[in-house]
Parts: sequence; structure tokens; C-alpha cells
Amino acid sequence: MHRDRHFTLSASCPDRVGIVARVSSFIAEHRGWILETSLHAEPPAEGEALGRYFMRIEIRTSSLPFHLAEFRERFRPLADELEMEWTITDSAVKKRVVVLVSKQEHCLYDLLARWQSKELDIEIPCVISNHDTFRGLVEWHGIPFHHVPVNADNKAQAYAEVARIFEEVRGETMVLARYMQVLSPQLCAAYAGRIINIHHSFLPSFVGAKPYHQAWAKGVKLIGATCHYVTADLDQGPIIDQDVIRIDHSDSVEDMVRYGKDIEKMVLARGLRYHLEGRVLVHRNKTIVFR
Amino acid sequence: MHRDRHFTLSASCPDRVGIVARVSSFIAEHRGWILETSLHAEPPAEGEALGRYFMRIEIRTSSLPFHLAEFRERFRPLADELEMEWTITDSAVKKRVVVLVSKQEHCLYDLLARWQSKELDIEIPCVISNHDTFRGLVEWHGIPFHHVPVNADNKAQAYAEVARIFEEVRGETMVLARYMQVLSPQLCAAYAGRIINIHHSFLPSFVGAKPYHQAWAKGVKLIGATCHYVTADLDQGPIIDQDVIRIDHSDSVEDMVRYGKDIEKMVLARGLRYHLEGRVLVHRNKTIVFR
Amino acid sequence: MHRDRHFTLSASCPDRVGIVARVSSFIAEHRGWILETSLHAEPPAEGEALGRYFMRIEIRTSSLPFHLAEFRERFRPLADELEMEWTITDSAVKKRVVVLVSKQEHCLYDLLARWQSKELDIEIPCVISNHDTFRGLVEWHGIPFHHVPVNADNKAQAYAEVARIFEEVRGETMVLARYMQVLSPQLCAAYAGRIINIHHSFLPSFVGAKPYHQAWAKGVKLIGATCHYVTADLDQGPIIDQDVIRIDHSDSVEDMVRYGKDIEKMVLARGLRYHLEGRVLVHRNKTIVFR
Amino acid sequence: MHRDRHFTLSASCPDRVGIVARVSSFIAEHRGWILETSLHAEPPAEGEALGRYFMRIEIRTSSLPFHLAEFRERFRPLADELEMEWTITDSAVKKRVVVLVSKQEHCLYDLLARWQSKELDIEIPCVISNHDTFRGLVEWHGIPFHHVPVNADNKAQAYAEVARIFEEVRGETMVLARYMQVLSPQLCAAYAGRIINIHHSFLPSFVGAKPYHQAWAKGVKLIGATCHYVTADLDQGPIIDQDVIRIDHSDSVEDMVRYGKDIEKMVLARGLRYHLEGRVLVHRNKTIVFR
Repeated sequence: MHRDRHFTLSASCPDRVGIVARVSSFIAEHRGWILETSLHAEPPAEGEALGRYFMRIEIRTSSLPFHLAEFRERFRPLADELEMEWTITDSAVKKRVVVLVSKQEHCLYDLLARWQSKELDIEIPCVISNHDTFRGLVEWHGIPFHHVPVNADNKAQAYAEVARIFEEVRGETMVLARYMQVLSPQLCAAYAGRIINIHHSFLPSFVGAKPYHQAWAKGVKLIGATCHYVTADLDQGPIIDQDVIRIDHSDSVEDMVRYGKDIEKMVLARGLRYHLEGRVLVHRNKTIVFR
Repeated sequence: MHRDRHFTLSASCPDRVGIVARVSSFIAEHRGWILETSLHAEPPAEGEALGRYFMRIEIRTSSLPFHLAEFRERFRPLADELEMEWTITDSAVKKRVVVLVSKQEHCLYDLLARWQSKELDIEIPCVISNHDTFRGLVEWHGIPFHHVPVNADNKAQAYAEVARIFEEVRGETMVLARYMQVLSPQLCAAYAGRIINIHHSFLPSFVGAKPYHQAWAKGVKLIGATCHYVTADLDQGPIIDQDVIRIDHSDSVEDMVRYGKDIEKMVLARGLRYHLEGRVLVHRNKTIVFR
Repeated sequence: MHRDRHFTLSASCPDRVGIVARVSSFIAEHRGWILETSLHAEPPAEGEALGRYFMRIEIRTSSLPFHLAEFRERFRPLADELEMEWTITDSAVKKRVVVLVSKQEHCLYDLLARWQSKELDIEIPCVISNHDTFRGLVEWHGIPFHHVPVNADNKAQAYAEVARIFEEVRGETMVLARYMQVLSPQLCAAYAGRIINIHHSFLPSFVGAKPYHQAWAKGVKLIGATCHYVTADLDQGPIIDQDVIRIDHSDSVEDMVRYGKDIEKMVLARGLRYHLEGRVLVHRNKTIVFR
Repeated sequence: MHRDRHFTLSASCPDRVGIVARVSSFIAEHRGWILETSLHAEPPAEGEALGRYFMRIEIRTSSLPFHLAEFRERFRPLADELEMEWTITDSAVKKRVVVLVSKQEHCLYDLLARWQSKELDIEIPCVISNHDTFRGLVEWHGIPFHHVPVNADNKAQAYAEVARIFEEVRGETMVLARYMQVLSPQLCAAYAGRIINIHHSFLPSFVGAKPYHQAWAKGVKLIGATCHYVTADLDQGPIIDQDVIRIDHSDSVEDMVRYGKDIEKMVLARGLRYHLEGRVLVHRNKTIVFR
């Protein structure tokens, strides 16, 4: 990696001969300096004629004779011809990430530390929580804090309020940093591919509540955490990243919770970074992650 | 670890005050030199009054004034008083391990290499296979090879034949080194806690056939292998050891199969060693593994 | 692990027959309920007649008829007879941990998060830093912050001031949470076995300054972090814990710094916990760590 | 990965605008179907004007209207213009790998197992050893075995003989599968970038003899293995791959040796595969490894 200002093109299209040649020639014609290129050809699924091609290209901004708007305009004809789905972003424009949290501290502190040091070079326009626990910490950092209680009776209003705040602050990505509520299907659908959750198990094992209790009962020898996009299907969205840690018979559920926190915050931060840098492309219910 | 000849006492009993004092005093009275001690107190499950205590003690043989038979006789009253389940073995007596294999080579070669170098200091009285593929390799090593075909119609006879051979060669442990058949419930019951399998997934995910295909379809970012005791409940027996390896979107099912082989053979060898050294104690459907 | 109040006995003595019997019988006589026992026999080094025996025992406080002072008094004759070095601590008495930090945030935030949630059940009587960067954050948490600048000319006074503050707040353990100064030999000697550092390499590789630059130049494929006791010999003290993370050719020094932070904070927190729970016993320049 | 027959182009050249465009356009002009592309830009070192660009491209053979010789001829002008160092190979032509071994079995068995199952789709024209230990096993596999003893007095002749055999069997890659002799500088120079060694430590720690003893003495908490190209500078050649495994205070040197074997054989096989698939490009004393 590097620190130069750059545009990031993330794209996919039906596979065919010459995609890389066409795209890289377009960039070369404008004397664009490519900093990083990642490519992946997904073979056709059974019964399909064509596979799908995925790419992510970083181009140094200063090497191009024009800016983002003009890049988009000039690139569009080629993208249309290749039937591309594509986005292009500017590394100088900070992504706006809204953090949702409940009463567990580890992911929140971790994200704040990374934000404070600019390791994670984002805006956090606000933190939303169903508890008031972390108001002080968040506000001390100069970040607005919204307490939106959620209970069995007010779910519809509560999630409407979450959506309203998210819109109001022009949120782009929503991070569930151990937010212990199941979002409504409406919210999941409205922000598909933009809500990232950390689940405290190595999915697909131990879906749902109390996964460490489930892991303890099963007697597994490693526990894990999974960062994934949220869909209406609980803990079944496309997996972005996972990791595990070794445990043994002497570890209680409480020990697992403690070990798990280290994995959770690391995997969430890693998955979030991949997402923000345009490294994650969703294909059906799976992800291509260009690390 | 060390190489001195030793007795290994593996035991469990209801938890109470003074267990370690009683057992270690017994050993000290006879001037027994303890080489290694591992202890674990399992707390009572919900609704139970007492937990259970587990121990594994290695005593240098030459430090004791008597041999295994007399140790057993003298220790029995104390064991009875503590309501112990216990075994004691002599490191100088090689364990007899029967290996079952199908057509995949990696676990078989790996076990033969460890046996050849005495890293795994066992007897392999024979290898049994449902295919004739590895007869040459096995026999070259001076180990008898039995081809016992298994098909939809002959399962009962086939497993009776496996059991007959196992008894005939006085097998103690049966290792399914990627043996691609489901053993009969009778066989599982007859040798409970003595049959070790390697399953090519990180259980409890991806039970049954073609776990790498399942893993690919799910889009997980790590794949694993699980060494476990075989029970009549497919891939649900007590887990002895597990491990994982990182994959990404560019890996096909064939790549996963290839990566997986490295994990499978390593985890199987590790689990088998723990078992043979008396390090694994089963408690309900879980294991205590004194590494 | 468990949460019951307990005493922790950590001890070592020359190896001989009957150590466990003697110590566990002492505990059993007083009806002490043992929660956890870890034992290790270190074989004699070349030219030595005797090895050394190490133990760590947790006893439930409520099971004993007396408290810590009386335990000490009653246990002393046995400990003397066995020529033991030993400590016993009470889980209900919080350890006093002074944190030293410079300008990097990750270990500090991480420790504060663990302290805030009582995952790490300690007192932090103060934070000391050679920069004023984190005064606000630390004081917001209600923890006193001392700015003790260090430069080429004032080292003696600066470290005298650190020692003075440490004594004044009755510090027990000093944690260098990426404190980027080399402590004086006097300080190292005065608090031997009580100062814990995190070094940002997999020691013994890449001692001293800029280890990630060294790692980059060498082209290693994994980078690591090492938690160790501080001695006068730079980065050479007894190692408590280590871990690594995979990198590749595409990672710059800046990427390594970023990945490394995740490993550093995790390894430091783990090593600190082991130390605080009496799990670490130093033997020559190595550690026994009862996990 | 995939199984279609393909050409693999591995190349590097001074970095400039348009490299990917030029190369991929060349391939597209001939309707070449790209199966896999990996690219890396190495920034200029201090004092250099230009960085260096690295690429590896797999093209499906059947998509091209010509074969390897013609590909080379047609591609050469472009390669010359870009000042490229390049190779192109055909996946249908098996690489010829000569294995050197001493008395330890694990890497040899492992390579034979992978060769037997075609997981590693290579020719092994012969095995060379300074001991006669594995003649039977190797010859049983139908592979010629050469015993070339090495001692203090005959080194020059012995290595001349190794080189002679290697030439005679048209060896392409030489694998030191725990070959416990230091090759002569002449041999290292003659086959630079073609001799792969597995060193039983996490380099740069513990260079030279008995690295597990060194690791034990230092008290590290992880041990490792390193696969690298052999150069005249002992254990200092470009690193291809590394891995580690956790140990603790209870592990003796013998335990480390045993654990280490699992890592050694896995890392060696991984590094060898990367090398054979044209995934490793050497840049100064480091490697780019396109996994």
C-alpha cells in the first residue's frame, strides 16, 4: 500500500476476451499511473455460459489530466459496452461510517482508536446505541451520540429512527460493532451491501444467540468471529472475513467471550477496511475480497 | 516431554477435597518420580451437585519398586474409594493401531513416515482398505494389507470382516485415515472411544459428504479439519483436535481439497498421538485433552 | 477459569520426590478446595544434579478456615523445608498497574477498554508519558496522567521521576505500552520481573529500533510482536508471549506497522494478564507460563 | 485455480505507464483467454528513479492460435521494448525436480505422497542422498536413487558428482528436503534461483546448525520453518515462504523437532509449488510471491 491520492475503480462484468486490455488501455491513453491492480475470473456456475470478471484498480490522481466526474463520463461508454457494474471513488474523500453499538466496549474502543490515529481515515458522523452506556466516551471524542432504545414494542419506530439519523448525517456505511439487536428486513434491504456486522462465531457454525455457549456445549477446539454483510436472513449474509483462536477444555464460556473479543474487533476492523477501500465485491451470496 | 520409560495414569472421579493429595501421596509413598502432571476440574453442570475431576500423571518406571500389575493392585483401593474411572499404561508397551484407508494417500503416507522414524512409536499390525490401491506401498513397509470391499449390499459382512481382522491382530485403536465409508453402528458401539476419524471440515460446519464443496458454496474464508472419536451419530463424536487454513475467493474446490490435505494429516496425527499417550479423557460428548 | 474469590500460590523449588504430595496435602488438611493446578518439572541443565519444580495453585478462599496472613504463616515451614521461592496473592485485591505510553494509541486504548469493562480487573493508579498527547483521554477516564518529558540531557532525572511516581502510587507492575524510550539500567534492576514491554518484532529477530523496517528489508513473510520482561539488556529479557501475522510482498512498511498494531496490543494484553494472574514464573532468562 | 492447459508468463520490467495495457492487448489481439493475472508494482528504492513492475499471467493454451515457440517469437519485440526479464512455460510440460535428502524422512515421504497422487504434477528423475537410508523407499516408487557420500575430504568431488547427476537427468529444480550438508558456493552460483531449501527456523532467527536448540535456549513461544532459495550466504537467500507453530515451556528440544517437522514439510511443499508454477519472482534478496 501507499499514501498517494488515488482513484479506486471496482468493477465486474461478464467474462470475455480483452477486458483487461480494454480497461488498462483506457487508463494508459490518459497516462494514468496504476498503483495497484487486482483481477479475478469467476468461472461460470453450472448451467451458465459465461463466468464473471472482477477487477479493482488504483490510479494515482495526479497522473490523470482530469478529475472524478470527467473520468466517470469518459469511462462510461466502455463500461456500458462491457456491461459493467462499477464504482469509482476518490481516496481524498473520507467515507462516512455510522457505528451502532450496545453495551460491549471492545469494538467501539477499537474503532475509536483507529479513527483517532487516522489509521482508519474515515468520518464517524455519529454513534447510535440502544443503550446510553457509551455516550460519555463517544462525546468526549467529539462525535455525536444518539440513544435509540429498542424493545419488543417499538421496533418499527426505533429502526425508522436509525434510518432517519443515518440519512440525516449522510451515512454511507453502517457498522454493527456488537450491536445486539436484529435489524428489520426493511433496513437490511434499504442498505444492502452497506451494513457490516461482526458475528461472534465462525459461521456457518453457531448462528443466532449465545454462540459461545453453543461452542462450549459442542466442545470445539477453536472459536472464531465472522464479519459479513447484513441481509434479512440472520447471520447468513456474504462473509467478508473470518478468524479463529485456539481454546481448550479448561476455558469456560466466560473465557471464550474474553478471547473472542480480541478476534471480533480485529476481524471487524479488517473487514470494514476492505469494504471502505473498495476491495469487496459481492457475487451472489459470496464475496471477492482483493486484499 | 522426555524419553524415560514411564507409567501413565489417566483418571477421572467426582470432584472433592483432597484428590490430588491422596493420589500424589500414594505415589510419593512409593518414591515414584512424577515426570508430568495435568489436572482439570470440570464444574458441575446445571442441576448437578458435584463436578468431575480429571488427571493424567506420568511416573518414571525406574523410580517405583514394582511393576504395572502390582501398581494396579495397590492403587485399586484408593481408586475405588474415590470412585475413579482409570487406566494405567506402560510407555514401553507399543500401542497397536490398525489403519483404515480408501484411495487418498496423504494421511497414509504421513502415518507411515511417522511410524518409520519412530516419531509415532506404535505397532501397525495391518492396514485395511475398501480399495486395493495402497497394497504395494503398505506391504513394502512390511505391514500386512487387507482388502475388504464395501458396497451397498455387503455392508454387514464387510464390517464383520473388519471387526474380525481387528480382533485377530489384537488391535487397540482404529484410525480412519480418510476412510470414505460410514462404519456400522455396531462397530461404533463395540469400539467406543477407540475409533478415531479425520473429518475434512471444521465441525460442526459441513457435516457429511463433500464438505469442501459445502464450504465453497458458503464462501467461508477459512477451511478446517476435525479429528474426533467415531460414534453412531455421523461426524458428531467428541472432538479431539481441529485446525484451519486461510483460503480466498480465488481458490476452487480443488484448491481447498489440496490445502485441506495438509491440515487433515497434521490434525489426525496430533489427535492420534494425544489419544495414544492417554491425554484424551471423554466427558459426555466432549474431550479433556491434556497437551 | 471461574470467578470465585481465590488465593493463587505460585512457587518453585528444587525438584524431588513428593513435592505435589506435600503441598496438596497441606491444602487438603485445611479443607482447601483447589480450583486450578498447573505443574511443571524443568529437567536439570547440563552439569546440574537437580531440576527445578514449578507450580501454580488456585484455592477457593471461602473453603479455607483462615485468611492470607495466616496461610502464609502456616505454609512457611513447608516452603522453607522445600527451599521454595513462592508468592501467594488474593484475587480480591486488585493489582496496581502503571501504564507508560508515548504517542501511539493502540495499546493504550486497548488497555483502557479492558480496564473499563473489568475484563482486566486492575487498578490503573496513573499513566505516565513522555508526551502530553493522551492526557485528555486518560483523564476523561478518571485516571491521573503524568507528563515526564525525556530527552538526551535529562534521562537520569526523568527516570528518577518515573520511579518516584511509581512508588508514590504504590505501583506493582509497570507496562510499557509502546513507550518509545529505553529505560535506565537502574530502573530495570529496581523493578526486575515487574516491568513488561511489548516489542514490535518476533524476537530474537529485529532487536532495537525500527523492526518493521528491518523486517521489510529482510523480506520475511510473517511479522510478529513479543511481550517480555524488561532487563538492562535491550529486548533480551525473558519472553512471556509472542504472536505473528502473515504479510506479503505487496505490504509496505506502513502496512506492517498497521498490521503489527493488532498483534502488539493482543500479545501485550495476554502477557500482562498472565503476569497479573501469577501464571508467569521466570527461570534463568526464560519463562514458564501456566496458561 | 483450474486444470485447463495453460501458458504461464512470469515477467518483470522497469515501471512505466501502460505496461499492463501493452501486454494484455498483445494477448487480446490473439484472442488469448486469461485465466489468472497477478500484478505488483515495487516502488523505487531510495535514490532510484524508477520502480519495477512484476506480473504473472496464465493464458489458456487452446484459446491461442499458436504454440509456445511462436508465442515467444511474437512476444519478444514487446518484451524487448519494455526491457523485460521474462519466462513462459507450458503447464503440460512437467517440471523436473531432483530431491536431495539425508536421514530425516518427513519431507521425502511428503513429497513422494504429493508426487504419487499427482497433487504435485512433476517428474522426479532421481533422488540424491549422502546416506543410503531411503534407497528402498525411493526405488520402490520407481525413482532412481543415487548415494553420494559427503565428508570433510571429498566435498569438491561430491558436489561435482551432484552437479553431474543433475545435468545428466536434465534437472530443472533442486530441492533440499532436509539435506544436512552445506552446498558449495560453485553449486549455489551455477543454479541460482533453482535450488530450494527448507530451514528449520523462522529466519532470520537461528541461522545455521541446531536451530531448535537455539530456540529452546532463547525461550521463544513459537517456532518456525523457512523455505528459501539457496545462495552462497548460508540461510540468507531470498525467503519464499515461512510458517510457525506455538510451543510452550513444557516442550523439550525433541518436542520442537517433532512439531517442526509438520511445519517444515508443509512450508517446503508450498514454496516448491509456488516456484514450479512461476509464482516466485526474485527482486534483489527478496521475493514477490503471487499466490
